[in-house]
Formats: sequence, C-alpha cells, structure tokens
Amino acid sequence: MKLEASLTAENINQKLLSVEYAVRGPILQRAQAIERELEKGVPKPFTRVVRANIGDCHALGQKPFTFIRQVLALAACPELAAAAAVPEDVKQRVQEIRDDCIQGSVGAYSPSAGLSLVRTRVAQFLEARDGVPASADDVHLGSGASDVIKAVLTMFAEQVDGKPSAVMIPVPQYPLFSGTLSELGLVRADYQLAEEQAWALQPHELERAYLQASEAARVRAIVVINPGNPTGQVLTRENIEEVIKFAYRRDLFILADEVYQENIVSKPFHSFKKVMHEMGAPYSGMELASFVTCSKGWAAECGLRAGFVELLRLQPRVAAAFRSARAVMQCPTVLGQCALDCAMKRPVPGEPSYPQFAAELAAVRRVLADRTATAYHTFNTIPGYFCNPIDGSMFAYPRVEIPERAQAAARELGLSPDEFYCLRLLEETGVCVIPGTGFGQRAGTFHFRTTILHPRDEFQHMMDCFRRFHQTFLENYS
Amino acid sequence: MKLEASLTAENINQKLLSVEYAVRGPILQRAQAIERELEKGVPKPFTRVVRANIGDCHALGQKPFTFIRQVLALAACPELAAAAAVPEDVKQRVQEIRDDCIQGSVGAYSPSAGLSLVRTRVAQFLEARDGVPASADDVHLGSGASDVIKAVLTMFAEQVDGKPSAVMIPVPQYPLFSGTLSELGLVRADYQLAEEQAWALQPHELERAYLQASEAARVRAIVVINPGNPTGQVLTRENIEEVIKFAYRRDLFILADEVYQENIVSKPFHSFKKVMHEMGAPYSGMELASFVTCSKGWAAECGLRAGFVELLRLQPRVAAAFRSARAVMQCPTVLGQCALDCAMKRPVPGEPSYPQFAAELAAVRRVLADRTATAYHTFNTIPGYFCNPIDGSMFAYPRVEIPERAQAAARELGLSPDEFYCLRLLEETGVCVIPGTGFGQRAGTFHFRTTILHPRDEFQHMMDCFRRFHQTFLENYS
Repeated sequence: MKLEASLTAENINQKLLSVEYAVRGPILQRAQAIERELEKGVPKPFTRVVRANIGDCHALGQKPFTFIRQVLALAACPELAAAAAVPEDVKQRVQEIRDDCIQGSVGAYSPSAGLSLVRTRVAQFLEARDGVPASADDVHLGSGASDVIKAVLTMFAEQVDGKPSAVMIPVPQYPLFSGTLSELGLVRADYQLAEEQAWALQPHELERAYLQASEAARVRAIVVINPGNPTGQVLTRENIEEVIKFAYRRDLFILADEVYQENIVSKPFHSFKKVMHEMGAPYSGMELASFVTCSKGWAAECGLRAGFVELLRLQPRVAAAFRSARAVMQCPTVLGQCALDCAMKRPVPGEPSYPQFAAELAAVRRVLADRTATAYHTFNTIPGYFCNPIDGSMFAYPRVEIPERAQAAARELGLSPDEFYCLRLLEETGVCVIPGTGFGQRAGTFHFRTTILHPRDEFQHMMDCFRRFHQTFLENYS
Repeated sequence: MKLEASLTAENINQKLLSVEYAVRGPILQRAQAIERELEKGVPKPFTRVVRANIGDCHALGQKPFTFIRQVLALAACPELAAAAAVPEDVKQRVQEIRDDCIQGSVGAYSPSAGLSLVRTRVAQFLEARDGVPASADDVHLGSGASDVIKAVLTMFAEQVDGKPSAVMIPVPQYPLFSGTLSELGLVRADYQLAEEQAWALQPHELERAYLQASEAARVRAIVVINPGNPTGQVLTRENIEEVIKFAYRRDLFILADEVYQENIVSKPFHSFKKVMHEMGAPYSGMELASFVTCSKGWAAECGLRAGFVELLRLQPRVAAAFRSARAVMQCPTVLGQCALDCAMKRPVPGEPSYPQFAAELAAVRRVLADRTATAYHTFNTIPGYFCNPIDGSMFAYPRVEIPERAQAAARELGLSPDEFYCLRLLEETGVCVIPGTGFGQRAGTFHFRTTILHPRDEFQHMMDCFRRFHQTFLENYS
C-alpha cells in the first residue's frame, strides 16, 4: 500500500519552493478573506476593502478605450460590423488585422513571434519613439511582458566557468524579477537605488554589487526598471549613459523593463535603445532586451495579456535558440495582439475614432497627473512619511518611520515591521497595500507600495486612511 | 574594445540549444519560402502550398462558432449589445462573465488560476463528463494547454538521490513534450506505442522503458496522450487501467494529455480521472494532471490561447509552490477564458443560440468523420503505405516504405529518410507535412504526420498528391 504522494516538498523542483510574488501574496489573501467577512456581515471599522496592491488600471475604474474594444469585438465577430454602428477606421483596422490572420480568424495560430502586421506596427512605434531604425524581426510578442521577460532570463540560466550565473536587479524591484530568478536558479545580485537621490542608479553602487556578487557567481546581466516600479522615478539621460557604460565595462547584457514609458507625468523618457544608439560605438553595438506591454501605457489592458520584447544584436545562434524555445509554446493570444496593434498605432487627427480617443486619453492623463501630485503631497505632509517625487508609473513607494515598539511587536508575530504595518493598516482601514519587503528596501527602512489610480473620491478616502491610521499607529506604539 | 557579444552559443542556457519543435521547424520554413517564390512567379509543378503541418482547424477553414464569437465581442465591447442583434443567451453569458471580472472589464487581471466563474464551469464540465466530483480549486487555467503542461513538468526538474529526473513519453509523441523536457533538462524515457496493435500502450514496453531509463535517471512521471497525437488512437478502458497500475507500481505521476477528447469519431473516451476513480483504492488516491484546451475540441480556438489543467491530490506544499510560480506570470488571457467558458457550457436546446450552434457542431463532426474515413481508406490503398484506424484527434500518421536507394539519397543530404521524403513531397506537390522524425518512430520505420481537416476539395487534392507522389518516388528510387 502506497502511502506517500509521488510529488512532495522534498522532491519537487526545489527552486519553486522559494518563488514569492508579494503582489499576489499573503496580504492580498487576507484582504480577500476580509471581503468575504464583510459580505457575511462581520463588523469592521470600515465598510469596504480598498485594493491598492496591483497595477491594474481597469480594476481601479479606468474605462477601456473605445477604439481598442471595438477593434477587438469586430476582430472576434466580424459579422457584427454590419449591425453595429462602428467607425470606418475601426472596420479598416479590423480588416488589416484579419488580412494577416490565416483564414481571417483570430482563432488560428499566429506565427510564434506574433502576427507580422503587429510586429511591423511595433517596429514603426519604436522608430517614431527613438528616431532609430527598428526591425519587426527583432520584435517578439508575448503573453504580457512577464512572459517574454521570463523567456529572456531563461537564456542566462547556465553555469559559466563553474559558477552560477547572476543577474543584477534593483532594490526596490518588481518581484516578477526576484520570483523568476528564483524559479530559474539564477543568483540575485541586488543593487540599491538611492532613495536620497530620487531613486537614481549610482555607478559606485552598481560596481559594489557587481564585485560582491562576483565572489560566488558570474554576473551576466543587469535589469533596469525605467520608469521605476515600485519607485516611480524616470531616469535621467545621464544616468542611463552611466548604466550603459557600466554594463559595457562589465560585459553585462541589459534588460530594460520600460513598461511604464507612456505613464509619465512630465519628464522626458529616454529608451535604453536610443541612448545606446546616440552614444555611438562601442555602446551602440551592445545587446539589449527592452520590454513593453499593453497592460501598462494608456491602454492598460492587463487582462488581455499582450506585450513584447525588442531583442537587439543577438548572435544568430542565440536568436535561433530563443525562437525555438518560443515556438514550443505556439504563439501569444491573437486578440491580445490586436490590442497591442491598437496601442502601437493609435487613432490620429482626421480619423473618425480620434475625437473620442483623444478625450479618453486626456482623461487618463489627467488622472495620472492628479494622483501623482496628490500622493506626493499627502505622503510628505504625514509626519514620519517621506516620498520622492513620482515621475510616472502608477505607484507610490513612501518610506514610513516605524517606532521601535511597533518593530518589537512585529518581531513577536514573526513579521517584518513593514508587513506588520500593512497588515494593521488593512485590518483597521480596509486599505490593501504591499509591504516594502516584497520589493526590497535598504536595511532599517520601511516602505509600502500603493497604486494611486483610484477614482478621486476613493483615492482621497485612501489618503485619509493613511494619515489617520499612521497617527493612531504612532500613538499606540510610541 | 569589446569584440564579442555577452550572450553566446557557449554561455547561453545550453538546454535551449537542443529544443526542437518540428511542427514549426525546417519543413515549414521551406514551405513558407516556396509560398514566397510562388508569389514572385517562380515556376513550380503546383500552384499553391497545402499546409498540413499544424493542428489548426480555423486555418484549415473551420468557421468559428457564432456563439463563442458573439460572447467574445460583447465581453470586449458591451456597448455593442444595444446596437447589434445578438441572442439573449449571449447577452446573459456576457453578463455572467463580466460580473466575475473586476469592474466588468476583461482588461483587468483575473486571479492567477483564472476567473472563479470559468473554473467553476470547468469543474461542472468535468463532473458531467465523468460522474466524479470535481472542484474549481483543482483547476488552473493557462495560455493554452502548452502553458500548463510546461508548468506541471517544471515541478519535476530536480535531481533525486543524485540522479536527474526522467519523464516517460510515448514514441511517437507530440514534440511539445520533447521540446519542453529539453528546455527543463529532464531526461526523456521513451516508450514505444505498438503500431501493430493500433498504437496501444503495452505494459511490458512501459516496464522495459522504465528499467532502461532508471539506470541513469530517476523516472518520476509518465505522459500519456489520449486521443493520440500524432497517432489518432483512442485508448481502451482496459489499456488505461494497465497504465494506471503500472504508474502506481512504479510510483509515477501521470500527466494525461487529453486535449483531443472531444475530437473522436466513434469510440468512447475514458478520462484517466474517471478510470482511476472507478478502480478505487489505492489507484483513486493517485495524483493526476489532466490537460484540456480550447484550441482543440469543437471550438478549436487555437489563437485565443486558453486551456487548463486539473491537478488532483497534490500535497499542499506542492500545490502552494505551483500556485506561487503561476502567480508571477499574473493570469491567462481573460478573453481566452471567456472562450473556454463557452466551450465548457455550450448552448443547450431551448436557448436562442442552440439551433445555430447545433448546426455548426454537426458540420464540424461531419468533417471529422469524413476526413478520418477518407484518410484511412486512401492511405491503406497506396502501395507501401499503412495507416491504423483513426479514432480521433485531427491527424493521420501513416507509415511509408522508403526504398533503400532513397534512404541512401537522404543520407547523402544529411537527412533522415522521412525528412527526405517529406521534403521531396513538398518540392514536387506543394504539400507540407511533418516527418516522423519530429515525433519519433520505431527504428527503421518511416512516417509523416498530416492534418486531415482541410475542406473537401483541398483534402482530396492532398490525398491525390500523396498517391501520385509516392508512385513517382518509388519509380525514381526502386
């Protein structure tokens, strides 16, 4: 009689046991439990949970863009075009997409890297953004950026000269990176962002992190998140040049997570590709992976799962291996590719869809500008809070002073002080934010990440909760 | 001055270099090149390429189901409901789905395992199929079955007692398995299907394969593809019981690729879950992973990327690790989930969409019945061809005698005889099928896989090409 399962915690892929993803971790699970309790009538000091754990604009009330959704609807069901009143440019776009689908069906597989039409549109978008040539052949679509980020990181999962490979990631970072490195068995080489300097990347810190990790690992690549997640800063051109020079000197492959490039309030966005190009040789000959997604930007279609990587200057055998591995998974969702097509080639003045599109875009921009300013102001007027200027993304990552007595209380519960803080915040106000532990923070400092794109009233309610809660918290633990 | 790329064939993840996926491999690339040559007017002995390389019904002309596509269209763009004439049950279905999406938007992330509604529908489908309880908590949606198959196989990528883990896969097999095992560094333990016994799984062959692989590896799991791909057989209940008993005796985790369960002409389909349940203890207590996808079945929505795994009786820590790793990738496409919802709960008599749905389903069934019969008959009347009865799937995998002189000609070109055969077939007739080498075959035998769901005229043309080509081939090389 067999008593044991065949797959156990002892013989499962051990790397999976250390995968963590705080954004969907314990605090969210507790928030969901509280929602169920509220439904059952359990009394709480609040009436609803405010979810601020994940960067999901639609979940926060952003309306889908009409143009995108009309294109999706007709691409799925072209027969509706006759009955429904949709603008001519929508019909035209759908026709272009269907012409590139086998038999005109979004239900047929596309090429593994994505429809030729959509990859061409991506290349055109990139050329217009940077003024640098782009090729559809370098563009690989994925099920969101996460999918292609994992695919690119997979290429580095190899021992070199008897040492495990390491990838440099920022602290704080987006836990997709730490989670994926764990799964792949890649060593994390953490570099600290300088909170006192608006979360800049400091060359001496990059060098320190490189040297430290090099003792036991072979550092192969560096991840840069610009605009920052969770930090929201936009890197200066000069800072990007410094990173490129560092990567060149240390022979590192750059992975540029640039998914928030359209979610910027005022500063200019410089892509790594453009800066490399403008720096000229030898930097313009370096490899690069840059990631963009339809889940972010103005489209914010998280649920559709569409994104891409532009993979530049790979050696032919490397590119071939990447393509083969991608082909096994067939192709990314074709309806997601349709949405990406819309995001890459938006309606322009003169087209029937433009006025509505422009109005919807302006609304999205207004919300971002308003919330970043309000969050920045609010956090910096709460005693014990500090928040850098928020240039973009859709998050704030304020630093919070936590009294020693609260830290002791946290330790007793086996929690980090910021976990304890966020849990108390949730239990007392219903606001669900993610502790800094999930992203990383300099030892002895405490943060949380909150999304900031809620509707105005909800947002103000949340800001009020932070202020009120922190005051009570200080009173309780000082 | 840096001369080399940082990522090279020498330091890339070496496992990626051995990933092959014949379905999108060299023969398809040559077919695409020929299509371009035809467009340019290069003279050929045919006027068009007939693609029979991939199991993609829509690409072969199957029309999408109206019900699914109307649901997708309105889920994407609910505003169209007012303008377009869609049946009430479509509107109702869309409302149910939107009620389970945050803010009613398919552009918001779903839970990592999929929308609760859709997982519940999957569980109801499974219960109705098997008469065995099913839980939505055991259902994990993915971007097609491929995605979740890879996720499940990833759990086994671990050395045990100093030995690499091995997974048993059939020969012939669907190259998703060989490709994914390569990427994960899992050892392949090939077991031969008995072509002379309608591709049955023979316990003594399973045992032989197990013992042989166990010399250098720890065999942990067995993949069974039922209905078979590329072979098209449906396993008998007795055969499934034998496999389960073998797996139990050898402590193997069963991965049941059951994606073609709805693509069967006449025989009954027995799920591994149902058979295990009916066998009772201890077999009913075994772990199991069973895979289903929206890309197959009657829906055949390959491009939408939706599938699921039912993961039964995992240990809690194993299940938690699986969930964590899945969460990092956020969630599968929500529009794909909508399609899966439709496939799991189809229109029923009395509902407004039913008559059209029933007519469309009957057409799909007719095509499958007709093509399997015609393919079986045709292949067995070509001298030198042999083909087992095709119970289901959407493929035929005929065996072809290749004369010794042709084998010698192949060797001179560095090709296997079946590769040479398929390449000549492509060059002389325009028909693109995949050589048996891509799936596996008993040494000294030669096969190819062809899809069989083309429109009738195209299908007959393809069958005529096989017959004519083989005759000429024999004349040339005998």
